[in-house]
This record gives sequence, structure tokens and C-alpha cells, in this order.
Amino acid sequence: MNRLYHYPLSPFSRKVRLSLAEKRIEVELVEERYWERDADFLRRNPAGKVPVLKMNNRVMADSTAICEYLEETHPTPALLPKDAETRYEVRRLVAWFDDKFNEEVTTKLMGERVFRKVMGTGYPDSANVKAGAKAIKYHLDYMAWLLDQRRWLAGNDMTLADFAAAAHLSCLDYVSDVDWNRSEIVKDWYAKIKSRPAFRSILADQISGFPQPGHYADLDF
Amino acid sequence: MNRLYHYPLSPFSRKVRLSLAEKRIEVELVEERYWERDADFLRRNPAGKVPVLKMNNRVMADSTAICEYLEETHPTPALLPKDAETRYEVRRLVAWFDDKFNEEVTTKLMGERVFRKVMGTGYPDSANVKAGAKAIKYHLDYMAWLLDQRRWLAGNDMTLADFAAAAHLSCLDYVSDVDWNRSEIVKDWYAKIKSRPAFRSILADQISGFPQPGHYADLDF
Ligand SMILES: N[C@@H](CCC(=O)N[C@@H](CS)C(=O)NCC(=O)O)C(=O)O
Ligand SMILES: N[C@@H](CCC(=O)N[C@@H](CS)C(=O)NCC(=O)O)C(=O)O
Repeated sequence: MNRLYHYPLSPFSRKVRLSLAEKRIEVELVEERYWERDADFLRRNPAGKVPVLKMNNRVMADSTAICEYLEETHPTPALLPKDAETRYEVRRLVAWFDDKFNEEVTTKLMGERVFRKVMGTGYPDSANVKAGAKAIKYHLDYMAWLLDQRRWLAGNDMTLADFAAAAHLSCLDYVSDVDWNRSEIVKDWYAKIKSRPAFRSILADQISGFPQPGHYADLDF
Repeated sequence: MNRLYHYPLSPFSRKVRLSLAEKRIEVELVEERYWERDADFLRRNPAGKVPVLKMNNRVMADSTAICEYLEETHPTPALLPKDAETRYEVRRLVAWFDDKFNEEVTTKLMGERVFRKVMGTGYPDSANVKAGAKAIKYHLDYMAWLLDQRRWLAGNDMTLADFAAAAHLSCLDYVSDVDWNRSEIVKDWYAKIKSRPAFRSILADQISGFPQPGHYADLDF
């Protein structure tokens, strides 16, 4: 059986879960409290990060390397387009969310509001929360600008770029940190992606200590 | 003419410079003081980061997305192998250096020793310098462990993984932060990569305020 070692509110884990589900690759999800740095876990991934995928007796780490591998070994349905220019744009946007958005928004909001509590590292730093709340507005506006010209973030087809973005935003939505009223076009995009069968497992996530808010799994949010 | 907006001591810029040079794609290098957030620069890359490549009237950002694009459009010589398993391993290692090594070592050492001075943001934080100096040992040992089993970091051929690693290590070597005596096998690997024609431009870098140390460009260091 394939296994994904993950944490429910890890956006990198969610990106891989979405790719696997879209490609109908079944996996058993194993929750990993990666900050406890369990010896077995470090043996699977010396980087000590989630997600880690165990598939066909191979153990793989790094969400982007895993998604590229899945794309090459399970090409249908495609999450990367065929032409080099659009593939570039998908990868640029995946990096935009996993690097820039993560640093400016996710680690600021989730890091302070969720991970401090889960890991027991004290109270949220309100300067970080404020900076994250400010930065997310700019990012939502950037998405609106892209979606004004394209059906999906990187072009006319749904790709890994949409999954990367939805992975971060769905984590933040679990703690009610996304203002969906800021842009109708971004809200419509999220409604489309939220209603895909691949999203179901993510909408069913429950994190102890953080009750799921009503709008989170509601397709009509 | 192709142009690369870069900063000489940016490891992400160096990874792209190495790929371009190995593939014999000529570019004009334009030094970008990205922290000054010049309006023209932000128009080229709203993420505000280097490197940015202007090629055939396209403007591209994110070093990994750029390197994948170069691989697809200029496949010879190949910096990604053919089989999916080794391609995965290359990408995992590129992420290892650009994510983990960067966070644990490069930003700690370069960030404190070089960028504070260049950007005028005060004195180095000695706790960070200490943490970076400690972490690099572990990373050199990890490289030695890999190279004990393989000719190059990801397998028997030189790949983007070697360029990602050499990009970070060459920046650190410019400020004499790499102890090459720690592992003979890592030193041999660096000597091999340093002697490639693609490395020449990097060995010629001069950063004002930081005179190039004697061993830096010496192939017999
Ligand atoms: N580049 C990695 C990043 C994964 C990552 O940072 N995961 C976080 C959880 S969201 C983690 O495990 N952090 C632990 C650490 O950095 O030590 C990927 O894409 O998989
Ligand atoms: N994911 C980007 C990261 C590039 C990056 O972080 N570059 C640094 C210089 S080494 C930078 O421009 N930082 C400015 C910033 O983060 O605002 C890439 O691979 O190109």
C-alpha cells in the first residue's frame, strides 16, 4: 500500500494529496508530527520535513520533486501542460506559492496561530500575524489579476499551480484567514477547485484543538 | 541579446549561470541590487527576486522553473537524466540545497556576513553565524555520504543537483566559510566541478567591499 506521511495543515502535503487524488493513486495517510523529529521519520527523510511518499517501495521527499515524478510516471490526467512556455509558467507559480506566499503569508499566519499552539512554543507574535494579514491581500490581488486573463492560474487548464495555491489557501481557510469577499474572481476559482473530487479528503480534515469552521467544507461558502 | 539579471553572490543566480554556460547559451550579466526594489526590476519580476532571465523576448523568474525550461528547450548537454527515478533524485537534491541548505547555512552565513554589510542593515548576529557554521558541517557530511556511493551527487552523471550544491558552496567559499579539509571526497567533487569551463565566470566574480580570497579561484585549493 502506498503511504503519505503528512500533516493535515501542511500546504506542501496538501499539494501532493491533491496530485495523488487527481491521478487516482490511492494512498494511506499517516499523520506525522514532524517537529517531534522521530527517528523513524528522519530515516525516511533526512530533511525532517513532510510530506514523504512511500510508493512502490521507494521513499520520496520534497513536494515539488514528488509532483514532477508523479507527472512523469502517471501522466494522465495531466497537471503540467505540454508546451515548454506554459510548463515554465506553472513552475514559476508553484514556486511563487511555495516560496514567496509561504514566507510572506503562510508561515506568518499559520506559523503563529496554529503551529505555536500545536508545538507548544508560546503565544502568537502579533507583528507576524499583522504582516501576514497584510501580505495576503496583495497575493489575492495578484491572483485576481492573473485570473482576469486566464481560466486557471497558469492558463486555460487546471495545473499544479492551482493545486499549490489551493493548498496554501485551504490551510489558511481552515483558520478563517482568507477574506473571500476581496475578489469575486478568486472566490469563483476556489469554488471550482473546492468542488473537485480530489479536494474531498482535504475538506474532511479535522485538527484537534482547532474545530473546523462551518464555511470551510461548504461548497457554497 | 539574452540577459540575466543576477547578483554575484546569489546562489540561485549562480545555479542558472552554470546551466546557461554548460548549455553554451550566451547571456549578458546585469547586476541587480534587488533589495533596492527598483521599479523596472519589479516590473520584470513581481516576486522581486533574482535571478531573472530575459531570453527570446520572454522574461522568466525562479531559478528552478528557469532551469527546467532550459532543460526542455536546450536538452543538450543534459543536466537532468532520462529515467524518472534519477530525475526525482536530482530534483530532491536541488530542493535540499535551495530549501534546507539555504535556510540552515546560506542565509545564516552569507546573510549575516555579506548581506548586512551590502544592504546596510547592521552588524552580523553572532548566534546566526554560529548556527550556520555548525550546520554546514552536517551538510558536508551528508554530501560525503552521497559521494561515497556515487560519482556525482545524484548518480553517475553531473546534473542540476551538482550545480545547485556548487552554487551555494561557491558563494560561501568566496567568504572563506567552507572547510574543504573536512572531507576529501567533497573536496575532490568541488575540484572537478570548479575546473569546468562553465565555472569560469563564477570564479571571476569580484564583489566590491569583499576582496576575492586567494584560494577561491585556485583550481588547486
Ligand atoms: N521543500 C519542501 C518543504 C516542506 C516543508 O517545509 N514542510 C514543513 C511543514 S509545512 C516542514 O516539514 N517543516 C519542518 C522543518 O522545516 O524542519 C517540500 O516542498 O516538501
Ligand atoms: N525561488 C527563488 C528564490 C530566489 C531568491 O530567494 N533570491 C534572493 C537572492 S539570493 C532574493 O532575490 N531575495 C529577495 C527577496 O526574497 O525579496 C529562485 O529559485 O529563484
